[in-house]
Amino acid sequence: MQTWMRFMSGDGGIVFGRVEGAYLHEYESLAQPVPTGAVLSLRALTPLAPCAPGKIVALWNNYHALAAKLDKPVPTHPLFLMKPAASVIGAGEPIRRPRHYAGKIVYEGELGIVIGQRCRDLDVQQAEAAIFGYTLVNDVTAADLLNENPHFPQWCRAKSFDTFCCLGPAIVSGFDWRAARLLTTLDGVERQNYPLADMVFSPAEQVSLISQDLTLEPGDVIACGTSLGVGSIKDGATVSITIDGIGTLTNTLSAAPRDAPQRLGDTANVG
Amino acid sequence: MQTWMRFMSGDGGIVFGRVEGAYLHEYESLAQPVPTGAVLSLRALTPLAPCAPGKIVALWNNYHALAAKLDKPVPTHPLFLMKPAASVIGAGEPIRRPRHYAGKIVYEGELGIVIGQRCRDLDVQQAEAAIFGYTLVNDVTAADLLNENPHFPQWCRAKSFDTFCCLGPAIVSGFDWRAARLLTTLDGVERQNYPLADMVFSPAEQVSLISQDLTLEPGDVIACGTSLGVGSIKDGATVSITIDGIGTLTNTLSAAPRDAPQRLGDTANVG
Repeated sequence: MQTWMRFMSGDGGIVFGRVEGAYLHEYESLAQPVPTGAVLSLRALTPLAPCAPGKIVALWNNYHALAAKLDKPVPTHPLFLMKPAASVIGAGEPIRRPRHYAGKIVYEGELGIVIGQRCRDLDVQQAEAAIFGYTLVNDVTAADLLNENPHFPQWCRAKSFDTFCCLGPAIVSGFDWRAARLLTTLDGVERQNYPLADMVFSPAEQVSLISQDLTLEPGDVIACGTSLGVGSIKDGATVSITIDGIGTLTNTLSAAPRDAPQRLGDTANVG
Repeated sequence: MQTWMRFMSGDGGIVFGRVEGAYLHEYESLAQPVPTGAVLSLRALTPLAPCAPGKIVALWNNYHALAAKLDKPVPTHPLFLMKPAASVIGAGEPIRRPRHYAGKIVYEGELGIVIGQRCRDLDVQQAEAAIFGYTLVNDVTAADLLNENPHFPQWCRAKSFDTFCCLGPAIVSGFDWRAARLLTTLDGVERQNYPLADMVFSPAEQVSLISQDLTLEPGDVIACGTSLGVGSIKDGATVSITIDGIGTLTNTLSAAPRDAPQRLGDTANVG
């Protein structure tokens, strides 16, 4: 197993590489995992989301236990929506409540597959080889929007707000997901604790089937869906998602700003 | 009005600029529309989709006439899904039937808004200023997938296959959409002919409201939704979408390859 992370360096540049002890062994990129020869002290670096996906393909109803609880049959093909690049934040960054949304926001702790090579129409064996590694995802959802309009379920909108895709803290390659469990805590209280082996479509099956629909690019992430224990995050609450061997992804929901309209994220412009 | 296009040059590079007569006046990029000083003959250039969106936000039910026909109320907020970057093709490129899908494929002729500046939480006036220009979209859809699973409408999947977002041929800035009509022909026979003024949310309203949900980046496209006359494309049929002042976007649906599994689009590997 190897642990890969992405950082901002002191001069504002972005570096990616393999973490060993207190050092980052820099690599060209996730798509070209060739060492540059540089070795950097982690103390001088600010962690970022471990990759910068062009898109996140997020599955619904991919665990037998959740399907049973929802009383739905397990799907015969991955059921998915997409979250955009701008929804991604890293470990420790705040989830921001959308300014015009006062409703329920929920966490969904998920295994994330990080794609290593361009994937088109791959079989399962090719798909396995195209997986760079695994990370953690909090697939944050504005739950009250999902069925706000009775004629059009708003899966994309409810899950695509800026900061609604927490990724990190690291990507672990060579990780055996079959024996692992995912734990989610809300303000320190355990809320999810499920075995990844309960997945309907395995990671390689997901990559293979989705690659027959659309091209996956290096750095793209598939969020494998969640299982039992999804729940509401109150403003100020902290969600931590852990898989032993990958790490812990922690993010706090911050309340919406109360001042005049602004450009979100552009804090220098706050009135 | 100015007409903007994107091309591949003889050396494989990508050039973007303003078209005047038989020449391209090259500009740095859509995000930085500053002339480079270069003037290129169009004869030496191969047209591409006029921009390379990171994402396409595609609206559903945004015309009063279609809402009335569907007997649905008009929405109070844009209802949308997302199509990924890899779904984009330009004018003249083939729409490819997915290898594992033998069902109905439909055209949807739409106005496309091309974003010129990063948009976050914009009001309508700011949104108007952030629109670079307008293009044409064929929002191709694998219609039989939409409701294939009764528990999860597959809007993203049905519209996200590679080649299912036809864009082009040009972006026209300073275009007045209010007086324009969109015409779609299938193998030369008129199928859609509707006024853009029938939109529920105007382009600036769409940009404003969507920017309150998620960040739009330069080059991103909003497909404004379609109106009456959507229909099926048989393999080998040609769809042309026209708005006077923007141009005509023509694409043909090619049948799925019949040989052994391959990597789609990688024709050098076809067995």
